[in-house]
Amino acid sequence: MTAFATPVRDMLFALKSLTDFDQVARLPGYEEATAELADAVFEEAGKFANGVLAHLNQPGDVQGAQWSDYQVKAADGFAEAYRQFVEAGWNSLGGDTAFGGQGLPAAISVAVNEMWCAANLSYSLLPLLTQGAIESLHHHASDALKATYLHKMVEGVWTGTMNLTEPQAGSDLSQVRSKAVPEGEHYRISGQKIFITWGEHDCAENIIHLVLARLPDAPAGVKGISLFVVPKYLVGADGALGARNDVRCVSIEHKLGIHASPTCVMQFGEQGGAIGYLVGEPNRGLEYMFTMMNHARLGVGVEGVAIAERAYQQAVWYARDRVQSRELGGSNPAPVAIIRHPDIRRMLMSMRSQIEAMRALSYVAAVALDMAAVHPDAAAQKQQQALVDFLIPIVKAWSTEQAQEITYLGVQIHGGMGFIEETGAAQFMRDARITTIYEGTTGIQALDLIGRKLARDGGATARAVLAMAAADAEKARACGETGARVADALQAALKLAQQSSDWMVVQFSGQPRAAAAGAVPYLKLMGTVLGGMMMARQVVAATQQRDSDPAWFDAKLATARFYAEHSLPLVSGLHVQVTGGAESVLLMDDAQF
Amino acid sequence: MTAFATPVRDMLFALKSLTDFDQVARLPGYEEATAELADAVFEEAGKFANGVLAHLNQPGDVQGAQWSDYQVKAADGFAEAYRQFVEAGWNSLGGDTAFGGQGLPAAISVAVNEMWCAANLSYSLLPLLTQGAIESLHHHASDALKATYLHKMVEGVWTGTMNLTEPQAGSDLSQVRSKAVPEGEHYRISGQKIFITWGEHDCAENIIHLVLARLPDAPAGVKGISLFVVPKYLVGADGALGARNDVRCVSIEHKLGIHASPTCVMQFGEQGGAIGYLVGEPNRGLEYMFTMMNHARLGVGVEGVAIAERAYQQAVWYARDRVQSRELGGSNPAPVAIIRHPDIRRMLMSMRSQIEAMRALSYVAAVALDMAAVHPDAAAQKQQQALVDFLIPIVKAWSTEQAQEITYLGVQIHGGMGFIEETGAAQFMRDARITTIYEGTTGIQALDLIGRKLARDGGATARAVLAMAAADAEKARACGETGARVADALQAALKLAQQSSDWMVVQFSGQPRAAAAGAVPYLKLMGTVLGGMMMARQVVAATQQRDSDPAWFDAKLATARFYAEHSLPLVSGLHVQVTGGAESVLLMDDAQF
Repeated sequence: MTAFATPVRDMLFALKSLTDFDQVARLPGYEEATAELADAVFEEAGKFANGVLAHLNQPGDVQGAQWSDYQVKAADGFAEAYRQFVEAGWNSLGGDTAFGGQGLPAAISVAVNEMWCAANLSYSLLPLLTQGAIESLHHHASDALKATYLHKMVEGVWTGTMNLTEPQAGSDLSQVRSKAVPEGEHYRISGQKIFITWGEHDCAENIIHLVLARLPDAPAGVKGISLFVVPKYLVGADGALGARNDVRCVSIEHKLGIHASPTCVMQFGEQGGAIGYLVGEPNRGLEYMFTMMNHARLGVGVEGVAIAERAYQQAVWYARDRVQSRELGGSNPAPVAIIRHPDIRRMLMSMRSQIEAMRALSYVAAVALDMAAVHPDAAAQKQQQALVDFLIPIVKAWSTEQAQEITYLGVQIHGGMGFIEETGAAQFMRDARITTIYEGTTGIQALDLIGRKLARDGGATARAVLAMAAADAEKARACGETGARVADALQAALKLAQQSSDWMVVQFSGQPRAAAAGAVPYLKLMGTVLGGMMMARQVVAATQQRDSDPAWFDAKLATARFYAEHSLPLVSGLHVQVTGGAESVLLMDDAQF
Repeated sequence: MTAFATPVRDMLFALKSLTDFDQVARLPGYEEATAELADAVFEEAGKFANGVLAHLNQPGDVQGAQWSDYQVKAADGFAEAYRQFVEAGWNSLGGDTAFGGQGLPAAISVAVNEMWCAANLSYSLLPLLTQGAIESLHHHASDALKATYLHKMVEGVWTGTMNLTEPQAGSDLSQVRSKAVPEGEHYRISGQKIFITWGEHDCAENIIHLVLARLPDAPAGVKGISLFVVPKYLVGADGALGARNDVRCVSIEHKLGIHASPTCVMQFGEQGGAIGYLVGEPNRGLEYMFTMMNHARLGVGVEGVAIAERAYQQAVWYARDRVQSRELGGSNPAPVAIIRHPDIRRMLMSMRSQIEAMRALSYVAAVALDMAAVHPDAAAQKQQQALVDFLIPIVKAWSTEQAQEITYLGVQIHGGMGFIEETGAAQFMRDARITTIYEGTTGIQALDLIGRKLARDGGATARAVLAMAAADAEKARACGETGARVADALQAALKLAQQSSDWMVVQFSGQPRAAAAGAVPYLKLMGTVLGGMMMARQVVAATQQRDSDPAWFDAKLATARFYAEHSLPLVSGLHVQVTGGAESVLLMDDAQF
């Protein structure tokens, strides 16, 4: 039994009341993205997530994707679910209208993705990877390539993959060895790619692989990598599918989680070279891949939110159902539902408050992504771009790290039953485990944050973000006792966040290894503080709207206060780790470990 | 590939230099438990763990124990390993010499158990459960029952189980429903027990079940539960095995981890009632079970240490082997082993320093257990009993909670490979997950700590323990710069620990629900602080012994400093959670979740 219902009301509250979503509909091209549209889309998407995808999650985990003779069969029901998904138009939600998309902003599509991820993380990766491939092609491919591929991919009839990693080239793509040899208008691609999500499957009629490879005369390192389109089936001038290309899935991985998402080893060019088409200019492949990095990393951060939400709902369901031990401090000897026990309640509050903070921050990043993309005012656009660039590594790494703890708590609340696979709680923990690793590990995100995002502009963006949070704290302070508590905790944390940021900016230029030693604690600190900013906004919004539904908004006030009293106090320890812990990280020789 | 070698030198250092182990050999009956004996036993046990048990760990995970037709077949190699284990005398290490045991103190047997757990957690549970059963029988069974069962169990020819849990009675044993009906000299037992570790298997010729059940006229609740011995095969007056008893394993669980340890559903009395023998007096079963609670809970805490050590070694091996990305801050563009990267190093230091602190604290508890058991001076014995009672819930819950984070970090260091089951890192995370649940969840340990251990004596034992830590801080202060840093951090933490303790004592009587809301953060706080106490001792010992091997002892100083700068600073946040976070835990109605 796993209980799940898409939390549509919470999601709409976060988007509409805690972000600048109302400004998105004022952006050129997004005029239709109103609050009313969000209501309607969320409602329908929620139904699809609950009704079609959620039920397939546990059976998909048990059965997994199956490899046989270079074919991959998706778990039972997945192909049919994908067919319905495409038919209902869910794949094209954020796509360019020029290619059949619905052109909705990230502010909406990111939240809708959260629903797919919560309902069925393994499934959600299929459209998510396709979105990434679409984005790279959209920005960098020739009109001819776009004309051939984008319509079908936006529609979802064809899916997309990203082929980056090789056995010797994981986080370090400078080591990519796959080759591309020119042959007339196209190239012959050869090499092995690993960890290719949904690299092969039976859910769509064609699979469009985006592949990083080196041209014969390419320079070494990251500046010698080009990007190619390699379709599973070649596509004729009329758009009809032609011959099978020289690429096949030679095996799939046996993983800790996301069993229903095939993780493929892809072999290109065993019979003379797979036919591929260059995207954009030679040697700019990595840059083109990074185009979709913000979207992809935000997407993984949202996976953390989603799987945490699912674990929370499962835990609440169990805590209401399971009767065990008498109520502490009461006189009745009869056992009660464990949700009555303070420690169970502490765990549920911890899960819930963190999820709300993570979700809201991810939506703030999505709104900023839309503003940065199409804001008509150049200065505003630049400012929003800096904001989103700063937020992305935090949302990606902090949300997914928190998801580890939250799914852990989900198991813990189940006691012994949590360790039994049939219960379902363990799957969320296993599935969540990949999210701090793929699309750049937490360590990689943290280096990105302290370098490109924090130190490069001398801490200017960080100061702006912290000032924004301070303004939210001030507004919260006007909102009764809860507001004052949240404001106090947030302001104390902001002071330490500014000190940590200042320290980091100085170290980054002079002592880069010391800066790197504190990078992950710094990222967690900033995530915790920005989560506090979201909770300050929540206090303000819930106070304003409380009369319409006191019980519902009081719960929002309660989680905000819990966050202020349980999450924000952790900032002081993280601050010491950042500013006082670097030396001891680096004290030992390699041989001493 | 999983790399593992029992860390004999680290273990001996912890036992001999960080505890009062030298006083154990002065206790009556433990005269032979000298430092030299520890050297010899650890060396040999380490060889057995590395050579026989460690290799079976990953295959055992993949294959798992197999149930078929009420029989359970252990994973390949386990039965033979157990035969060798018994033959080498490892099962009888801590057993009473009157029943063929070697009579070694817990100070030694607990550390040796750590080796079995690290090498193969699933395997280790078989002798661990037997030890628990032996202890209950030893303290409470009649001479006749002891004569019949103890020799074979101490030797290991027969194994033991603990049958407590029923579907409706997990943490709350007052709900036990299994029945025992008198019939002449014995009883007829019926009922279902779940989560019975190694409840059925093919590694030993008989299995001795200890079973909690109710007599016909028993009062309701925990004061109506009796303890029975129910052998799988009845034992004749001559000690020969007789008829098969009316108990069978009807299924085994499909679990997240410890796959090679069969977790059985045991059905008693399907054919008229299993023949069982009352242990001690009627209605005192729970009390008798609690006799072995300290040993069992310490044992599970040590499982946390052990699995963390194994995860650490695997991570170090991978970090040395995996070459990826250039060295930060250097000028050489060539990629280096990832152990050179500061964030990998931070993770390894975090794992290593916490393991050292956890291990040392668990050995302190083991030494106190020996002192409490046989110290000739009544006042000293009482004092040691108070100490061990206070430490047990902390060692159990804190070590196992830390093991979650440490095994998580082990996976993280592997990047994408960590998510692939063949790598082996994921198994440690899965296996570790049960340790915060069984033998009393973290929440149960925390309630035990704040109630029976902290508040009952008005905080006297807690004050004594914190004073002991303060004395260690003072000694560390005399040991150079590292000593001063550790002393500063520890003293600051101790101050907060005392304040948290005082708060908790007051709340426990007046506001038990508020106390319970902070119980787990309080337990973690105390674990972190007492880990700091062990690191203070480590500074002193490493400073004294440094000249004999500077590199090795410098590493001990480095981890102590890391602990002071990365773990102890977390105490401030935990302190706020404890003393300022209770209200917000309890703010919401059940329906608001």
